[in-house]
Amino acid sequence: MRILVALGGNAILQHQEKGTAEEQFVNVRTACKHLVEIIEQGHRVTITHGNGPQVGDILLKDELAKDTLPPMPLDVCGAESQGMIGYMIQQSLRNELQKAGVSSQVATVLTEMVVDASDQAFKFPTKPIGPFYTSTEASHIREERGWILVEDSGRGYRRVVPSPRPQTVLQAQVIRELTDAGIIVIAAGGGGVPVVSTEDGFKGIEAVIDKDLSAAVLGGLISAEVLLILTDVRNVFLNYGLPNQTPLGRVTSEECRRYLEEGQFASGSMRPKMEAVVNFLGAGGERAIITRLQDAKDALDGTAGTTVVP
Amino acid sequence: MRILVALGGNAILQHQEKGTAEEQFVNVRTACKHLVEIIEQGHRVTITHGNGPQVGDILLKDELAKDTLPPMPLDVCGAESQGMIGYMIQQSLRNELQKAGVSSQVATVLTEMVVDASDQAFKFPTKPIGPFYTSTEASHIREERGWILVEDSGRGYRRVVPSPRPQTVLQAQVIRELTDAGIIVIAAGGGGVPVVSTEDGFKGIEAVIDKDLSAAVLGGLISAEVLLILTDVRNVFLNYGLPNQTPLGRVTSEECRRYLEEGQFASGSMRPKMEAVVNFLGAGGERAIITRLQDAKDALDGTAGTTVVP
Repeated sequence: MRILVALGGNAILQHQEKGTAEEQFVNVRTACKHLVEIIEQGHRVTITHGNGPQVGDILLKDELAKDTLPPMPLDVCGAESQGMIGYMIQQSLRNELQKAGVSSQVATVLTEMVVDASDQAFKFPTKPIGPFYTSTEASHIREERGWILVEDSGRGYRRVVPSPRPQTVLQAQVIRELTDAGIIVIAAGGGGVPVVSTEDGFKGIEAVIDKDLSAAVLGGLISAEVLLILTDVRNVFLNYGLPNQTPLGRVTSEECRRYLEEGQFASGSMRPKMEAVVNFLGAGGERAIITRLQDAKDALDGTAGTTVVP
Repeated sequence: MRILVALGGNAILQHQEKGTAEEQFVNVRTACKHLVEIIEQGHRVTITHGNGPQVGDILLKDELAKDTLPPMPLDVCGAESQGMIGYMIQQSLRNELQKAGVSSQVATVLTEMVVDASDQAFKFPTKPIGPFYTSTEASHIREERGWILVEDSGRGYRRVVPSPRPQTVLQAQVIRELTDAGIIVIAAGGGGVPVVSTEDGFKGIEAVIDKDLSAAVLGGLISAEVLLILTDVRNVFLNYGLPNQTPLGRVTSEECRRYLEEGQFASGSMRPKMEAVVNFLGAGGERAIITRLQDAKDALDGTAGTTVVP
């Protein structure tokens, strides 16, 4: 089977960690061991990943250095994070594959994701990114840089940026070519670098794209049969956090659509994942799974996780 | 013809510039217009590039933010710079190709370059990188981080790191596959991320690799016929800077080897380029050219630049 794996940010860097390269390599290596279990079974795997903590650190470094060096725009920071994380995954995965006696090649393809300039998200930026500011700092930044900042959960003010819907991948042919040749491709990291069509061609834009929605788009473009979203919970829950919470086992896309309409899933958390699942199955995917890294293999065998079918 | 183009750092960021993304995109767009002139003639082009100013800025940002966030090791910073620069080149080149009516695909492949752990360079680090420090700061850093710092041209102290010889590219098969499919690949940026073989597989190492020497290695691996090194001078000179300086037109690899032995070329400048040329021709290359961006097309036609043949 052709499987698109979407690795959650926690597979690379955990919240309580400092963010050293050593910590990230340790986490990535663990994630790769689980991926090898899947690849060993003969599946063709393509990998995408989140970049939240990494691009957050890049933005914070830019901020701390801003009196000395010009900060980079979000598209460039996203490209940097794809280089950084792609490197860590490709190196670790190749090493783990070699230990397991699997000779597959691994490559990271820097990915641009097309978004629509008329996407409503550009009118209503909602995605908080980068460091926290005090109220005074926030006022200055609004004037100086024209950013939109909002109060974020009592911890201070943060910049919010648009999170438009991913449309298509500019490097789709390249990724497909490599996947067809049996190469494990790492692509669309952090949801891909957001670009919009202009008179002068495609240009980067200040936005971030949800990595699971991007995974669904990429999965469709490479004709993946399975979308495997790896996060930090074993199952998706109905009525999550309530006394009657229920784990979802095997459900249909239609049922998921109804749960989404009921507002079952938290936005910024399980909601975009479930939307990605519904999109992927709507575009011809055969199966979508949401589970934890350590249950990925069992979930593919149908004995763990939440599985959604058309 | 299959041409490996090595873009100098000045094609992306000039010394007197601040380093904003806008400046870099303007420079890269200009470079890409010249590359399109070559691609339009039907040549198959693969691109590599320097990363000096960009990785310098990444290191300086890490330094300025070090009390808040852990600095990244050199291999990770190199991977970040490949993402950043690869993105700028692939986007600009695709747009310029489209304007010229050429439909070629462009893709950046994150590249790891194998170096030999027993390379003499690890005993004698010589390549200055990152910010300048005062004598007191330098003493502290030597103790705290075990770095080697040397006085650099009266401007302060700088870290020096090993610059080992590139041996081979871990992504060679991938780059070759894409090149064969007619895709313009951007690879081995900044000379590639340096990795050494260990018991646990290939691991990153604190070093930098000369991008022209890496270009020669990559050129050999993809069977490029021409190595085109683009820098800021129209020709290589003999007796450079002396009253009897002479531009080199068409010379043989044998003559170059003799000039290298005579110490004709400045180390850290023209010397590694000429060594790259000799290596490339020794590995089966048909022609190597050193010239400026704006003379690249004429140099390929044999009417400009310094051309070296076996």
